[in-house]
Amino acid sequence: MKLLRFGPTGSEKPGLLDADGQIRDLSGHVDDIAGGVLSPEGLAKIAAIDPASLPTAPEGSRYGPCVGRVGKFICIGLNYADHAAESNLPVPDEPVIFMKATSAIVGPNDEVLKPRGSTKLDWEVELGVVIGKKASYVSEAEALDYVAGYCTINDVSERNFQIERGGTWDKGKGCDTFGPIGPWLVTKDEAGDVNNLSMWLDVNGKRFQNGNTATMVFKPAFLVHYVSQFMSLHPGDVISTGTPPGVGLGQKPEPIYLNVGDVMELGIQGLGSQKQTVGAA
Amino acid sequence: MKLLRFGPTGSEKPGLLDADGQIRDLSGHVDDIAGGVLSPEGLAKIAAIDPASLPTAPEGSRYGPCVGRVGKFICIGLNYADHAAESNLPVPDEPVIFMKATSAIVGPNDEVLKPRGSTKLDWEVELGVVIGKKASYVSEAEALDYVAGYCTINDVSERNFQIERGGTWDKGKGCDTFGPIGPWLVTKDEAGDVNNLSMWLDVNGKRFQNGNTATMVFKPAFLVHYVSQFMSLHPGDVISTGTPPGVGLGQKPEPIYLNVGDVMELGIQGLGSQKQTVGAA
Repeated sequence: MKLLRFGPTGSEKPGLLDADGQIRDLSGHVDDIAGGVLSPEGLAKIAAIDPASLPTAPEGSRYGPCVGRVGKFICIGLNYADHAAESNLPVPDEPVIFMKATSAIVGPNDEVLKPRGSTKLDWEVELGVVIGKKASYVSEAEALDYVAGYCTINDVSERNFQIERGGTWDKGKGCDTFGPIGPWLVTKDEAGDVNNLSMWLDVNGKRFQNGNTATMVFKPAFLVHYVSQFMSLHPGDVISTGTPPGVGLGQKPEPIYLNVGDVMELGIQGLGSQKQTVGAA
Repeated sequence: MKLLRFGPTGSEKPGLLDADGQIRDLSGHVDDIAGGVLSPEGLAKIAAIDPASLPTAPEGSRYGPCVGRVGKFICIGLNYADHAAESNLPVPDEPVIFMKATSAIVGPNDEVLKPRGSTKLDWEVELGVVIGKKASYVSEAEALDYVAGYCTINDVSERNFQIERGGTWDKGKGCDTFGPIGPWLVTKDEAGDVNNLSMWLDVNGKRFQNGNTATMVFKPAFLVHYVSQFMSLHPGDVISTGTPPGVGLGQKPEPIYLNVGDVMELGIQGLGSQKQTVGAA
């Protein structure tokens, strides 16, 4: 299934995409695409509904973030060997964890705001893993049992705030609108082989990122296992699994950063695409 | 006012402490000590209630975390000059920001669990700032208008996970039970001069931390202003403002870390005290 949330910011309704590409309204059945609805039992209940029996959403409805009430927005750094190289950093021995503020989460086609004082606004297309049930100290072999599905994420980053302002990376990762998520939460059974999905990102129509999850250093199953050794994962938590080469910071002969008016388009095979225009905060 | 949450984990009720030190049940008036209840208007409504008109809580009720539905748990590192020195790190030019997982939050007297594989479990008494209304790009002069109140926090840390496992500090800060908060959210008007509060922490009856917020490098008003330049702050967000000297990592001739069965007691002048026993995860 392709689950989603549609409607105005802050009052999104739960929905799903039917076989004809129409948004169907699930609000008569579930309160949100969030929490317990993401459990195996919750997803089974939705799967039992005939989409044709559901009302269609108003034409042109906005897509909201595909998951509601995200408790933790965990990110994995330097998880593509080529991206580590373009960042002039070694491939880590074990996953690098950092966190994005959940207040950064927006819909897949919402405006991305360039923060005041920003000089190095950058992009990162990433595969998102959405947790479906509580995971604590889970093995790699059983890790995917705790996953509800996958989504496209743009891990928008401000490199000056991230790298040059002292402390951890969190300062340049959690700005408002830095976390477009969606359009869909594609359930595990329909996401295909997540270790072999092509992914791409264009800025103003020019392709900058052109990768595949096949070159990830640490795969989703390992990451769920690994993170669960440090903190419990809860339904609706999201793990963004790192970005392939081609970010602005890595461009030659000089980095390229985003300005107000620039347009990002990005997507992952089978998980849908996003389009954001850069505005001013 | 001293606001609080009482009852079993996950089903805490909102309450307040009356002048006789009794917990009074606010659940007939507000749904939680969270979100909009923390706004100036929400707090004014509670202040207008005669505590004597409220039911008392059952004798021996557990204290839960004093704030519910925390969206962001933001921490400031190395914010006491003497603590930076004992950590062999320079005093930062501007605040160091990192994030604790909100799933780490527990009540002030709940068990703290030593994670599997933990070898360097440590303590940090800290002044917590609780946000009362949305703050984005606020000036230092107006920053405290956005604060609902203050609380005692133990920023429990695993130094091996934090420092020796690669990546940011987040890995050793967000483990389950690493965020005891409370017992009370003391509203701004009753918290006294938060730039001059004594604070202390004992382990097994021996005093290790004995500080005062007067030696903070960056004060609460500056911190709210500063963090709001990087991300919007929302009602119920918590900023933990750093710890004075005396953590386990800083002990001479050798660091001292916590084991299962050890007992931490800690408090801040006027904000109440906590007591945690270390258990095994």
